[in-house]
Amino acid sequence: MPDPLAHTRELFDLDDDVVYLDGNSLGAPPRAVAERVQDVVRHQWGRRLIRSWAEGWWEAPERVGNRIGRLIGAGPGQVIVADSTSVNLFKALMAAVRNTDRAEIVVDEGTFPTDGYIARSVAELTGLALRPAPPEDLDLRDTTAVVLLNHVDYRTGRLLDMAEVTEQVHAVGAKVVWDLCHSAGVLPIELDALNVDLAVGCTYKFLNGGPGSPAFLYVPKHAQSTFEQPLTGWTGHEVPFAMAAEYTPDPGVSRARVGTPDIISMLALDAALDVWDGVDLADVRAKGLALTAHFRGLVEDLPGIEVITPADDRRGHQVSLRHPEAGRIMDQLVERQILGDHRPPDVLRFGFAPLYNTFEDAERAAAVLKELL
Amino acid sequence: MPDPLAHTRELFDLDDDVVYLDGNSLGAPPRAVAERVQDVVRHQWGRRLIRSWAEGWWEAPERVGNRIGRLIGAGPGQVIVADSTSVNLFKALMAAVRNTDRAEIVVDEGTFPTDGYIARSVAELTGLALRPAPPEDLDLRDTTAVVLLNHVDYRTGRLLDMAEVTEQVHAVGAKVVWDLCHSAGVLPIELDALNVDLAVGCTYKFLNGGPGSPAFLYVPKHAQSTFEQPLTGWTGHEVPFAMAAEYTPDPGVSRARVGTPDIISMLALDAALDVWDGVDLADVRAKGLALTAHFRGLVEDLPGIEVITPADDRRGHQVSLRHPEAGRIMDQLVERQILGDHRPPDVLRFGFAPLYNTFEDAERAAAVLKELL
Repeated sequence: MPDPLAHTRELFDLDDDVVYLDGNSLGAPPRAVAERVQDVVRHQWGRRLIRSWAEGWWEAPERVGNRIGRLIGAGPGQVIVADSTSVNLFKALMAAVRNTDRAEIVVDEGTFPTDGYIARSVAELTGLALRPAPPEDLDLRDTTAVVLLNHVDYRTGRLLDMAEVTEQVHAVGAKVVWDLCHSAGVLPIELDALNVDLAVGCTYKFLNGGPGSPAFLYVPKHAQSTFEQPLTGWTGHEVPFAMAAEYTPDPGVSRARVGTPDIISMLALDAALDVWDGVDLADVRAKGLALTAHFRGLVEDLPGIEVITPADDRRGHQVSLRHPEAGRIMDQLVERQILGDHRPPDVLRFGFAPLYNTFEDAERAAAVLKELL
Repeated sequence: MPDPLAHTRELFDLDDDVVYLDGNSLGAPPRAVAERVQDVVRHQWGRRLIRSWAEGWWEAPERVGNRIGRLIGAGPGQVIVADSTSVNLFKALMAAVRNTDRAEIVVDEGTFPTDGYIARSVAELTGLALRPAPPEDLDLRDTTAVVLLNHVDYRTGRLLDMAEVTEQVHAVGAKVVWDLCHSAGVLPIELDALNVDLAVGCTYKFLNGGPGSPAFLYVPKHAQSTFEQPLTGWTGHEVPFAMAAEYTPDPGVSRARVGTPDIISMLALDAALDVWDGVDLADVRAKGLALTAHFRGLVEDLPGIEVITPADDRRGHQVSLRHPEAGRIMDQLVERQILGDHRPPDVLRFGFAPLYNTFEDAERAAAVLKELL
């Protein structure tokens, strides 16, 4: 069967002697980025100067947001690119609990730290309780205001069933906020179709936006008029350049903007997104499952290794292995140009990005790992 | 008298046929930026990939913060570069009023909108009152918790006396948060010496960091252990990579970090700051006052023009003119390659950046303005 993604590796600037399996932490650079950034600095900033704000910069958060929307099942006008994931989590949770008469925020107990920290902070600010719970048994109640969930667990790679869990949450009248950091660019996501309340995600993992590139926030049309959060920066104003004394939020998704958008990074991300043009996420998903299954098969019987990523399709595009000497092993892998990462205390993570990783990458990585053990 | 800044214009990538007088909104690009950004994208990201986080990226917010610290009178370990000005204002104000038993937040009544919006939001969240007041008569009380002030007014260019006002605020036992957006890179600032409580500022105006480049936040040593704010993102944690379930803030200024730092923009700013190496801010100030005085003298008697920038030294490096047809006039100036900006309803702003603007710029701009009137 021909690989419909055989051509995409060439779109990335990656050395052949490196096996890069850390796209779940920092995606590889698409070739288009370097040139685009030069144009932004030398031409747009250097030649057009302040005029560029009226020549595409100002609307970049919404325009680039719409491009991400296509990858997560969100129609136009519902996604903005802005700030960091942590800041967007704060906006989303504060908006979700505003005016609620319910008593608790639920977060998955194995959550990426920032989600838990921000949820705790929102709980303290608003007087709600925070209850960490296992995703397979959330124990939702009619007192649950909002549930914050990582679509793919950063440590194990476990994937939650977004349709099923969203329905569970809605069944008790609560809202769900999905963190898509480890699933955007991994598999087809249908935020609109599943009636998801809010979602956030980063763009520097499988979306390859660059180190610390700005994050995104999804606020569906029906939730926009009631989306109110405390980071009322001037660019979220209905008429920012009126410089009015009172804050009136934009009627649409732009109300989720805060400060002046960071243009160099935003347009680097914009260029990076070109690799998705014409790509079907179903193909990405099929290849990602095949790559990770192949790698798993090669390593699961190695001495001292325990695979903690689910074996069935309920997983993202990473394979996580547990080994008591994970830290030392990853250092040695990196010395041998096999780049994955280590999460304390004992987890080795290998991320497979179907746009640039190959079956040969899986084989080379597994061979070196075997040698080291 | 020789101009000690005669050599710095060459450090900028500016066309000779443009008179760029909008550095108070978006600074001009230092030449070093384009090349540095190429290195960040092609080498640091492309070749070193994830390894770059351990090769200088992670500490960039503090390292670049220290470079800005030198320009605002802040010793090392007290400034971080992160997020936008609006987000940093939120952190600063929330931290300033935490655990206070006082009743009000005071903001200068002509404040840049985002400061007022965020102050309002913080007041609503915390139950304090917000009182806008004229800076020359703040009417401070023993119920005042914090005062947020723009060092230089974005509209008129009026400069406040930081020493005098800080002392007034401290005299009633309140805290002061200074917004340095229009004064950083304009004149010598002495945050440490004046015992300022907190300060924020952007880096894309007179610091030339690029469109929407990340902002900075000053938290002096003595205030760090009590600096607590709700954006408890994982990178502000004492041991971020421990991925602990509970948030424990870093003991130092890093606790003011939130999400993953935006590296491309951060290192573009880092490169941009090179133009300040060896520059004495007293020279910058002297030349800025001379440039603006020269321009003022050339335009103040033009028909229909009212200068609203103070005539004495209590001003930043902009000259603001009022004219009923300000919008149309600025459009015509821009067509003739004189780039300033227009703030509604009737203000024309001309910013002078002593590192790249010349007396000839002032003369060319004044001549075209005269012709148009």
